[in-house]
Amino acid sequence: MSTEPPLLLALDLGGTFAFALNGALTAIRVAKLDVVGVVTLGMVTALGGGIIRDIFIDSLPPATFSDWRYLMVAAAGSLVAFAFGWRLTRLVKPILVLDAAGLSLFAVTGASKALDFGVGPGQAVILGAITAVGGGTLRDVLSGRVPVVLRSELYAIPALVAATVVVVTVRTGVYGIPVALAAAVVCFAIRLLGVRLRLNAPSPPRINPD
Amino acid sequence: MSTEPPLLLALDLGGTFAFALNGALTAIRVAKLDVVGVVTLGMVTALGGGIIRDIFIDSLPPATFSDWRYLMVAAAGSLVAFAFGWRLTRLVKPILVLDAAGLSLFAVTGASKALDFGVGPGQAVILGAITAVGGGTLRDVLSGRVPVVLRSELYAIPALVAATVVVVTVRTGVYGIPVALAAAVVCFAIRLLGVRLRLNAPSPPRINPD
Amino acid sequence: MSTEPPLLLALDLGGTFAFALNGALTAIRVAKLDVVGVVTLGMVTALGGGIIRDIFIDSLPPATFSDWRYLMVAAAGSLVAFAFGWRLTRLVKPILVLDAAGLSLFAVTGASKALDFGVGPGQAVILGAITAVGGGTLRDVLSGRVPVVLRSELYAIPALVAATVVVVTVRTGVYGIPVALAAAVVCFAIRLLGVRLRLNAPSPPRINPD
Repeated sequence: MSTEPPLLLALDLGGTFAFALNGALTAIRVAKLDVVGVVTLGMVTALGGGIIRDIFIDSLPPATFSDWRYLMVAAAGSLVAFAFGWRLTRLVKPILVLDAAGLSLFAVTGASKALDFGVGPGQAVILGAITAVGGGTLRDVLSGRVPVVLRSELYAIPALVAATVVVVTVRTGVYGIPVALAAAVVCFAIRLLGVRLRLNAPSPPRINPD
Repeated sequence: MSTEPPLLLALDLGGTFAFALNGALTAIRVAKLDVVGVVTLGMVTALGGGIIRDIFIDSLPPATFSDWRYLMVAAAGSLVAFAFGWRLTRLVKPILVLDAAGLSLFAVTGASKALDFGVGPGQAVILGAITAVGGGTLRDVLSGRVPVVLRSELYAIPALVAATVVVVTVRTGVYGIPVALAAAVVCFAIRLLGVRLRLNAPSPPRINPD
Repeated sequence: MSTEPPLLLALDLGGTFAFALNGALTAIRVAKLDVVGVVTLGMVTALGGGIIRDIFIDSLPPATFSDWRYLMVAAAGSLVAFAFGWRLTRLVKPILVLDAAGLSLFAVTGASKALDFGVGPGQAVILGAITAVGGGTLRDVLSGRVPVVLRSELYAIPALVAATVVVVTVRTGVYGIPVALAAAVVCFAIRLLGVRLRLNAPSPPRINPD
């Protein structure tokens, strides 16, 4: 942990907080859960993507679990949502924006950490996307919904774009704070634009109904 | 395996048997499955929590998988439930009691094993709870239900209490057979009391319906 | 990877392609997903079983992830299904046949690889079955269905048969290309016969309806 670059850590904790708020608000809105359910879903959403990534790169125990800072930030975000979530009317918009923030930050940090552990460039892009969508996928499976990454609207694509920017710039030696932030902003913008314009990725040419 | 304390092993096998019966009875009652489905759901419920814990503490292959005693006990519990489960009218009460037993035993053994592998005290408490609720969560996800740990009624809290008792007493040097059994009994009692009194953990202050 | 026997690799890539087609066609038929959803579900179905096996045998990063050939084959199968899937009327029969093919090939390769990593014979049989049913189970959970391995019809049993044939013949020294192919064909035949004849594994003696 001491060798982790401060930038990576800051972005990672930011994504953790955003996803914890998101997961906990989802628990309040969709499933009407009690405090344990809210905190559990918040922490799973916040820590799940990083845990899956760390299993894939054989970095066990997972950093997001063994490093108390992640646990604290995830618990804090969940409790904040529990305490104040009911004030947020309908909660739909903040849930979407927080999810996009977590997605963007984790795509950048996931790809960056994967490269640090020596996986190939293609694998690093995929792992960035897995880190970004993993927590939300667990959130959706646990709350009985088809994961957002499978449903329409641009979700995995902005994460893949941000992860690709990270991998390309690391390989060409221009990666740094400005590039990392720019990649996250691009992902965030594409995601929210997709939601706003109801843009979806292309569908199959024709579907034979069942 | 040979270095495992006999107490930990006995409690762990007890929890494995209870969860195997529980998962298999759940398969009979909820999903009306055939023998393969019943045994599969029994074994997943019995072994899932320990497998998740062992992935987290980097103890792979998982003990509950590589040690044939766990596989045998899990398979035996599932087959017993398959053979005799139909005699149990409605099955609701035994399913609840067996689930509480597995929860209690795994909270104790999960926290204890996590400490043996050198994780911090907070992590050990969380891992105790994950070991306790993990198998049942997989059972619920596979059978298409929202996991009981997210739904109301006291479920994760008694597991966290038992795991905390284990961690505190190990650290203060008073942990042993009596403490381990007492922690499991306390968890079991809180869980069943919660079910009986329909006690739930606190809910958010106010919920804005969707 | 270079030490992997060519036979194991060829069968494994064949199973990967079959499951990628299957998962992607399922995404088109059941969930009406866009291209990202189709490719995601295709790749999860194709790579999921091998990833679970590799976590169990502590072979991380998973071979199906770190070896680009698996990623390429899985992506290619998914894209082929995306491009041409709509031509296949109703899709039910090809989905079933491809699933049976993936099941058969992965049962053989999963058991074989598990033995290579030194697990016991019983564990190797179970790991063969887990490799075979794992990807389809993730596919079903992500698309909101009870996994086919839990539902009726012979599904896990042919996989267990094929894995047992592999383990027994490896131990007796007669394992080779003919045996591996024969085990896969036997699994494939049992599975499709079960579907055709609506054969199910035995159900519990009597069920008390809820």
